[in-house]
Amino acid sequence: MSWQNNLHSVSPYIAGEQPELTDMIKLNTNENPYQPSLQVQKVIEDFKSENLRLYPSTDAKFLRKALAEYHHLNTDQVFIGNGSDEVLSLSFLTFFNGQRAILMPDISYSFYPIYCELYRIPYQKIPLADDFSLSVNSYFQENGGIVIANPNAPTGMAISLQEIEEILQNNQDSIVLIDEAYIDFGGESCLPLLEKFDNLVVVQTFSKSRSLAGIRLGIAFGSAEAIAHLYDVKNSFNSYPIDSLAQKIGEASFTDETYFQKSVSKIITTRENFKNELIKLGFQVTDSKTNFVFVHHPKIDATTLFKVLYEAKIIVRHWNQARISDWLRITIGTDREMNTVIQFLKEYLKNKEKSY
Amino acid sequence: MSWQNNLHSVSPYIAGEQPELTDMIKLNTNENPYQPSLQVQKVIEDFKSENLRLYPSTDAKFLRKALAEYHHLNTDQVFIGNGSDEVLSLSFLTFFNGQRAILMPDISYSFYPIYCELYRIPYQKIPLADDFSLSVNSYFQENGGIVIANPNAPTGMAISLQEIEEILQNNQDSIVLIDEAYIDFGGESCLPLLEKFDNLVVVQTFSKSRSLAGIRLGIAFGSAEAIAHLYDVKNSFNSYPIDSLAQKIGEASFTDETYFQKSVSKIITTRENFKNELIKLGFQVTDSKTNFVFVHHPKIDATTLFKVLYEAKIIVRHWNQARISDWLRITIGTDREMNTVIQFLKEYLKNKEKSY
Repeated sequence: MSWQNNLHSVSPYIAGEQPELTDMIKLNTNENPYQPSLQVQKVIEDFKSENLRLYPSTDAKFLRKALAEYHHLNTDQVFIGNGSDEVLSLSFLTFFNGQRAILMPDISYSFYPIYCELYRIPYQKIPLADDFSLSVNSYFQENGGIVIANPNAPTGMAISLQEIEEILQNNQDSIVLIDEAYIDFGGESCLPLLEKFDNLVVVQTFSKSRSLAGIRLGIAFGSAEAIAHLYDVKNSFNSYPIDSLAQKIGEASFTDETYFQKSVSKIITTRENFKNELIKLGFQVTDSKTNFVFVHHPKIDATTLFKVLYEAKIIVRHWNQARISDWLRITIGTDREMNTVIQFLKEYLKNKEKSY
Repeated sequence: MSWQNNLHSVSPYIAGEQPELTDMIKLNTNENPYQPSLQVQKVIEDFKSENLRLYPSTDAKFLRKALAEYHHLNTDQVFIGNGSDEVLSLSFLTFFNGQRAILMPDISYSFYPIYCELYRIPYQKIPLADDFSLSVNSYFQENGGIVIANPNAPTGMAISLQEIEEILQNNQDSIVLIDEAYIDFGGESCLPLLEKFDNLVVVQTFSKSRSLAGIRLGIAFGSAEAIAHLYDVKNSFNSYPIDSLAQKIGEASFTDETYFQKSVSKIITTRENFKNELIKLGFQVTDSKTNFVFVHHPKIDATTLFKVLYEAKIIVRHWNQARISDWLRITIGTDREMNTVIQFLKEYLKNKEKSY
């Protein structure tokens, strides 16, 4: 007997590297290349540190209200967490407490099975088709819950509002969690379905389209009943997860719709241009509705490509994992950054062909 | 069958009220009456919001390093969490995973049993003596872990380093978690015992003595092995719990030792003066080593006293709970605030005596 016998053993999630090179092109964690709204800068400048002696609002009251108004929902339908990873984590803990396995695509955000192992939630992976498309029919079976990223990561591919509605219609006895971390880059949000389904929970984040990965804010939207349960679990986990400054920064980021739309549009335009250039170079590229592309080249091994890009100080993401080990995920940066990537790949492919 | 059947049912912790009255004297959540170090203000002023587009360090690397240096420990002995509530929560999940009940005092931080219920950890409450003192012998029995707040809350009373060492000596096969949230106000930290015991975990916070309740930073110190396990669980729960600004603010608060010592001393002096005045008024007051006092008046019902204080806009804390329902916990504010409380109580007692 030793204290080590009482440990909860887990295999943790490994986040994308945050390297300390200064002259790199960092395209590995889907960060936004543009700064957050200038309203955020203003809030920070105006913040008085003496306020920090007091505890923040336990449930980020004003931020929830701002988000509810923005999305035409009630405040009690909005949950704020410490990044969407925490929102997902607490959602798994709250909603997936049944005996039956929860369902998720076999290729998706790799944190989902890790939450399941942390909380000992049985789960079943449903294979995507060979082209990474999702068939809703495979979710018409008994389950203890469903989690689907829409658009999906790392494929970038989206399913339609109608498909989500079909899943909901066939699964009214378990929570259907739709992770919309990347929804603002071209997918269709299922928030309107909250009117019809009290078992739908939609998770979004400030980290991607709002350029606020550094401040850790995530959201869950759902029925007042579901959100109340999520708050009960949150209040059994941590009283005050969102600091005062983060609450104010979150509010500020929703006051400048013009800037938001402009920076999102820019990323979408860059993505489409980048994608076309990649196709010209012989890459296979999925139909991404996100701020990244998922790519494969029939003539280059992805592990090798990851390495040569890294040596050229271009950092992308690669998984040594069945079905996707031949693929790379590349975040959309600025036009300039993506041009550098294209120029590098052109050169690399030219030299490679010469060497045949 | 319905989605509600899959819910994880809990009775959440209820934090002290954060009322929105502006002219109140808020002595209910043990906040520091003094502002944080001016270095904190400077860090906020200098912060560039464009940095927020990037994810923060997953493990608050520089802040851990600063804390390790301050306490003469190694960086791998330091864990940073989103407030000490999160640190405690993740510690319970990580370390208390055995079959045997964990032990805790019957009167202590009311979050402990709530974590146990959240994670389904069996626990046993060990009664304090009638004078709220803790007998170490009652912790010499089989257990799956031990958690003790030192100084204790809400009693404010501390145990000695030697007593903690005795507990550790008799419990080398389970984690002994010492919650030192209030340690800087007069208790003796058990950090030096980390040299001898790899099963000791010490939790501290930035919320009390560092005046940073609003920024949500908590710490666990332990053996490199214990801390690595805690990080594994944290990395299965949430990748990036501490935002970039909070990491910098935490670092800044440790650069101004003079200010820190001065504000802590001031609170201790105010506490002792306040305590003496209360005793003169007939109150029974425990020997507090914290920034609050725990008080009882033989002639006044605590529920009534709580109410009349509230009506006078003086907000303190009361629990409707066995053994302490006759007691109030009063945070130490400024001298001026505590004088107002004393004046009010003098007046109230005088009028009460008249009415006999």
